[in-house]
Amino acid sequence: MTGPATSGFSRRRALAVAGAGVGLAGVAAAGGALAGRSVQGEGGPAAQPGGAVAFTGAHQAGIVTPAQDRLHFVAFDVITKDRARLVAMLQAWTAAAARMTAGRDAGEIGAVNGVPEAPPDDTGEALGLPPSGLTLTVGFGPSLFDGRFGLRDRRPAALADLPRFPGDALDPAISGGDLCVQACAHDPQVAVHAVRNLARIGMGVVSVRWSQLGFGRTSSTSVDQATPRNLFGFKDGTANLKAEEPDLLRDHLWVQPGDGPEWMTGGSYLVTRKIRMIIETWDRTSLREQEAIVGRTKGSGAPLSGGGEFDEPDFALQSEGAPVIAEVAHVRLAHPSSNNGARMLRRGYNFVDGSDGLGRLDAGLFFIAYQRDPRTAFVPVQQQLARHDVMNEYLRHVSSGLFAVPPGVTGGDDFWGAALLA
Amino acid sequence: MTGPATSGFSRRRALAVAGAGVGLAGVAAAGGALAGRSVQGEGGPAAQPGGAVAFTGAHQAGIVTPAQDRLHFVAFDVITKDRARLVAMLQAWTAAAARMTAGRDAGEIGAVNGVPEAPPDDTGEALGLPPSGLTLTVGFGPSLFDGRFGLRDRRPAALADLPRFPGDALDPAISGGDLCVQACAHDPQVAVHAVRNLARIGMGVVSVRWSQLGFGRTSSTSVDQATPRNLFGFKDGTANLKAEEPDLLRDHLWVQPGDGPEWMTGGSYLVTRKIRMIIETWDRTSLREQEAIVGRTKGSGAPLSGGGEFDEPDFALQSEGAPVIAEVAHVRLAHPSSNNGARMLRRGYNFVDGSDGLGRLDAGLFFIAYQRDPRTAFVPVQQQLARHDVMNEYLRHVSSGLFAVPPGVTGGDDFWGAALLA
Repeated sequence: MTGPATSGFSRRRALAVAGAGVGLAGVAAAGGALAGRSVQGEGGPAAQPGGAVAFTGAHQAGIVTPAQDRLHFVAFDVITKDRARLVAMLQAWTAAAARMTAGRDAGEIGAVNGVPEAPPDDTGEALGLPPSGLTLTVGFGPSLFDGRFGLRDRRPAALADLPRFPGDALDPAISGGDLCVQACAHDPQVAVHAVRNLARIGMGVVSVRWSQLGFGRTSSTSVDQATPRNLFGFKDGTANLKAEEPDLLRDHLWVQPGDGPEWMTGGSYLVTRKIRMIIETWDRTSLREQEAIVGRTKGSGAPLSGGGEFDEPDFALQSEGAPVIAEVAHVRLAHPSSNNGARMLRRGYNFVDGSDGLGRLDAGLFFIAYQRDPRTAFVPVQQQLARHDVMNEYLRHVSSGLFAVPPGVTGGDDFWGAALLA
Repeated sequence: MTGPATSGFSRRRALAVAGAGVGLAGVAAAGGALAGRSVQGEGGPAAQPGGAVAFTGAHQAGIVTPAQDRLHFVAFDVITKDRARLVAMLQAWTAAAARMTAGRDAGEIGAVNGVPEAPPDDTGEALGLPPSGLTLTVGFGPSLFDGRFGLRDRRPAALADLPRFPGDALDPAISGGDLCVQACAHDPQVAVHAVRNLARIGMGVVSVRWSQLGFGRTSSTSVDQATPRNLFGFKDGTANLKAEEPDLLRDHLWVQPGDGPEWMTGGSYLVTRKIRMIIETWDRTSLREQEAIVGRTKGSGAPLSGGGEFDEPDFALQSEGAPVIAEVAHVRLAHPSSNNGARMLRRGYNFVDGSDGLGRLDAGLFFIAYQRDPRTAFVPVQQQLARHDVMNEYLRHVSSGLFAVPPGVTGGDDFWGAALLA
């Protein structure tokens, strides 16, 4: 089977060709790409929904970046014991990530280095699509610090294995991982394309351990974002850490000098939990009961103690001899005042993974939280919730992940994990 | 546990409250909803991405409606043998679908009929979201016409069980179903909300058999839409039936008077196939080979015989004694000229369902096609493809569905399936 000779073409040339057939938005985005669209630094917001988020900076993008609408999260096992191959892959990943977050292909899509029989260096399904706010954020799991790569003495103390929590129903096959990549974008095809091309580049070095799509962000990470709703129908993440709070981010989000190994300064620790919601049971619960469990109203998201969504809950308020916000209400148990001031930056997503074979949708929350030290943030908060939260009747934690997310790359020869591995 | 008394509130009131906190687009959409936004008839395009598509009409919406970006498809088993309960559920579904496609809640979210302890009649996760082009399209599977509901003699001849095709690797647990609902929208949260609320309304009458999320449309159903790309990175559905071709739609899409049972006139037959793509193997194939298998270029989507994307392939063109478009190229095998003129309206979606436990993404195409009669459309085309298409090396059909999609509802007391069941 032969066709006419195929000359190599770049995503830019493909974009120019595709531009003739796409709608106005696509043409404008392609034009912007060709003109070298300006981007904002350090994960700041893209100028427009289709625009690009800067890849380089002191911190990785995708953490305080205003939460995009869609997620593709992937965890990898490293299948080589050759440290040099791991380093080479991380270098290739970094270069491809810089290209893809700018709205370019992962590499040449046509004949590679003049070899017409080579596979393309980009898989093509994002040809013609704008950058769509894509961010790619890498993390290193505890298992990477076993004996394979000589990293045993570089493991941060804060990357301590999570304890088992009451009620955990974790499936090891969709938990853990040596490496993770969080891909967020406003277009799921762009996020999927990025993960798929990183997996392609890593062939022979890494193997996909598990992956998760999320379709609706459940937290705001900027004061400019409206608070979204989770699949219980409630606003979620009202009291989240936000990009506009630098003092809180310093204290609760970013690893500070002296906190632990120097290679993590400017980084953060990531906890993921896949939380199945038993929505059919929840849906048979009265509105009054739902609101009592959460501690907020379903409509506006205001605390049951009164005021608006962003007013602080009044946990002392009593009515007829009982606290208006119950002792075991979710908002009380998760509140910093109940957890020695613990704060996290959450950026989770709703998921539906088909059905469960028992006549129910397999749906819930893919919880994502970044923090300066899980030992004083996620761990104590989850211990409290796992023990007391009435909401647990409607929840099941089925996967868990913990990752050290290094600081951002600075450009030049820098690459993901350079300070750890170079 | 008690909170302050919760008064019932409609999605409209909730929208008005939420409007204070949402961005400009949300406010504009909410304002539009309150003002009674006009909608176009018979599945025509929504005036804006957040707008509403008309629910009533001669045909169901969601077929020739310009393909929205996101899909939630669900198949149900009927678990009652009581025909009256099935009819009552379809009536309730129709009313809820009319509300939700207009951007309203499925029912009251607060105290229901003054009973504060009742569960809400809407689950709440779409509160504050615009209609987002939501369409809900219902279909009846062959198994509904067994003895349970007295429908045995009303089964259309065109709803003949699909034959087994060479290479089929179907999983019965994610195939078939008595009923299906195709929910398409520009916002996946809106599509998921609709399916979830129909499942909630159907509790005790139906049980979710399987469900599938799709994130990127792979076909255009209007000449105004750019051709999207599937996960092989190629443009897909260039030669699709389109809304602007009424003669072709009459001949190939809509059931005509005299075709079969009268209750299907104005309806169509739906075939779904979940097609796993072995993308890791495809990604190791050279660009030249990929293009030869498809019969089109990867960049522009033009036939290998030359011209642009929308030029007809020249199957007779030879080069060096061989056809330029191979005898087994996908574009040739699927072309109407190779299938006695068979045409379908395709509106499939890309999917990624995590990973497969073997280090690979579980990804592919959820194929959806509507046609006047599968016996002269999908069946012969798929028999040809299953036998000869070289692309099969990279594909596996893992689920299959066949449904009779009745005509649209006209308003008033009409409901989904009334002509069949009333």
